[in-house]
Amino acid sequence: MSIANLQVVLASRPAGKAAESDFRFVEAPVPQPREGELLVRVDWLSLDPYMRGRMNEGKSYAARVELGEVMVGGTVGTVIASRHGRFAEGDKVLGTLGWQRYAVSDGKGLVKLPDPRLPETVWLGAAGMPGITAWMGLTQIGTPAPGETVVVSAASGAVGSVAGQLARIAGCRVVGIAGGAAKCGYVVAELGFDACVDYKAGPVDAALKAAVPSGIDVYFDNVGGEILDAVLRRVNPGARVPLCGLIAGYDGAELAIRNVYSLLVNRVRLQGFIVTDRMDLWPGAMKELAGHVASGRIKYRETVAQGLEAAPRAFLGMLRGENFGKQLVRVSDTVPDTANQAGKTPVER
Amino acid sequence: MSIANLQVVLASRPAGKAAESDFRFVEAPVPQPREGELLVRVDWLSLDPYMRGRMNEGKSYAARVELGEVMVGGTVGTVIASRHGRFAEGDKVLGTLGWQRYAVSDGKGLVKLPDPRLPETVWLGAAGMPGITAWMGLTQIGTPAPGETVVVSAASGAVGSVAGQLARIAGCRVVGIAGGAAKCGYVVAELGFDACVDYKAGPVDAALKAAVPSGIDVYFDNVGGEILDAVLRRVNPGARVPLCGLIAGYDGAELAIRNVYSLLVNRVRLQGFIVTDRMDLWPGAMKELAGHVASGRIKYRETVAQGLEAAPRAFLGMLRGENFGKQLVRVSDTVPDTANQAGKTPVER
Repeated sequence: MSIANLQVVLASRPAGKAAESDFRFVEAPVPQPREGELLVRVDWLSLDPYMRGRMNEGKSYAARVELGEVMVGGTVGTVIASRHGRFAEGDKVLGTLGWQRYAVSDGKGLVKLPDPRLPETVWLGAAGMPGITAWMGLTQIGTPAPGETVVVSAASGAVGSVAGQLARIAGCRVVGIAGGAAKCGYVVAELGFDACVDYKAGPVDAALKAAVPSGIDVYFDNVGGEILDAVLRRVNPGARVPLCGLIAGYDGAELAIRNVYSLLVNRVRLQGFIVTDRMDLWPGAMKELAGHVASGRIKYRETVAQGLEAAPRAFLGMLRGENFGKQLVRVSDTVPDTANQAGKTPVER
Repeated sequence: MSIANLQVVLASRPAGKAAESDFRFVEAPVPQPREGELLVRVDWLSLDPYMRGRMNEGKSYAARVELGEVMVGGTVGTVIASRHGRFAEGDKVLGTLGWQRYAVSDGKGLVKLPDPRLPETVWLGAAGMPGITAWMGLTQIGTPAPGETVVVSAASGAVGSVAGQLARIAGCRVVGIAGGAAKCGYVVAELGFDACVDYKAGPVDAALKAAVPSGIDVYFDNVGGEILDAVLRRVNPGARVPLCGLIAGYDGAELAIRNVYSLLVNRVRLQGFIVTDRMDLWPGAMKELAGHVASGRIKYRETVAQGLEAAPRAFLGMLRGENFGKQLVRVSDTVPDTANQAGKTPVER
């Protein structure tokens, strides 16, 4: 094989906001699998907020990406050469092969797509890590009861959209928080949330108050910051707050919780969690989520960037909330664009 | 009976720090019990930080005290007249009769002292509401395992001292945080903590780091504020933080949690709790705590203010940390001072 392997490596650690210059494109020969290995062509790369944490010097959820190292990322790909007993040429595989066109793997952490009837990108979204994150926070910490009010921030995103729909399936009143009329409209009209607060349209506090007449029992927090404080002004006694992400804080901005008194007075349980801590729960969660997607009870939307070259820009845009739904990169132009797949909502960009 | 009943009522709601002028002394006739009621002479009044919250306009743990109303408070007293089937003259009773010398009760919320062999003030301290608060936060949220490191703020206080000793009994490394060399010395030498950080002696951060070589697994938080942030810099993954009190914040001072990122990265469970939410757990907790006190495994210390006239000043001093151990008011000079009771540490003031 004489084609080159394009990779995106970490060029520098961001000082504050991440920039395109923090990434560097590298061309390398396509690696060849040795005995017990296989070669995968990356078809789809998932872009997720956690990656921003991995770019920092300090401790994140997991090991940081080293300078010059290929950026970490979830992928769906196709086996194009195999010297591994478990995989054959042509197999579609889900793994964490990073921001590159080709990767050699020893098979660890790689699985064949669980259900070929579903669109393959669903395993990077609603039935993949983001969906499982929603499931984990909601079922292990949020524990919503029927009739309770559940608020979800970043409600149109890959995690928030699933969290809200799971809460709706559980019989809750579900209120989203999202940026802009288009996202809010989608959250209510398509995803079936009971209401959605547009944080770009005015002060969150008043709009949130109107949307939660019975107060808030669960807040699935994807953003931290001022919205968390606004929520804490409306929580009911015994409220649960799964702390999933702090998009606003990955760049180093201060994200203080000012309303600590509410945590005490309302006996709030605020708990951070990382989806990879409980790998034992993944198979059951994936099965449940895939079932909901197959039956149409969980809907999702994707924003697809075309080509690995577009990945850094798409990633930075996602951190600013410019994506709509799950942010993907279509790395290989040999796979059909998701717009061509059945049961999908329109592709953006 | 022609003697007067002295009462302390709420005169005004504090703007910021509470002051003596927020209280007013009132003389009223001693009330007479009707059929089904009993008259109690208050012997001991407990002073506790939660009372500061009840003085505010807004929502506290429970109903606020109204202007002109007798201040709320736990009491031990003696039945001096009874027209109630369950109580007889001379009975010693535990209840919430407030800042006054005499009170009529219909018996609701009133119990005879569970074990006459223990000093009667223990039911307002280590085996009473403060001790149960420690027990509740530690066992229901903190869930310390043997060998884990438990940090307790306000470590020489009524709640903190019991929380730390329970953690020691559970086989943990226990580190206190207290103000001043005397309190820190007591916490280590008398209560058996492994170490104590004196927050008045210098920056908490460096001293805390040295005291917790294996990080922090449980932080029993009685104060909030900067100390909580210092702790969050040292927590281990999966740490639990029972949020018990926010002494520093009752006067309205901002008590932001700035290190929210640590909550996420370290999957911290931060949970407010109120001891009266789980009255079902009180009998078991009281029995366990009384057993520990009787056997000497749990020690305690008291600061006693003499006479109801001293209550406002003692209360304000307690909010500033001027007490040492459980703050009591000896309301009736007919009961022996606690210095005369067996098994007690010296009385202050």
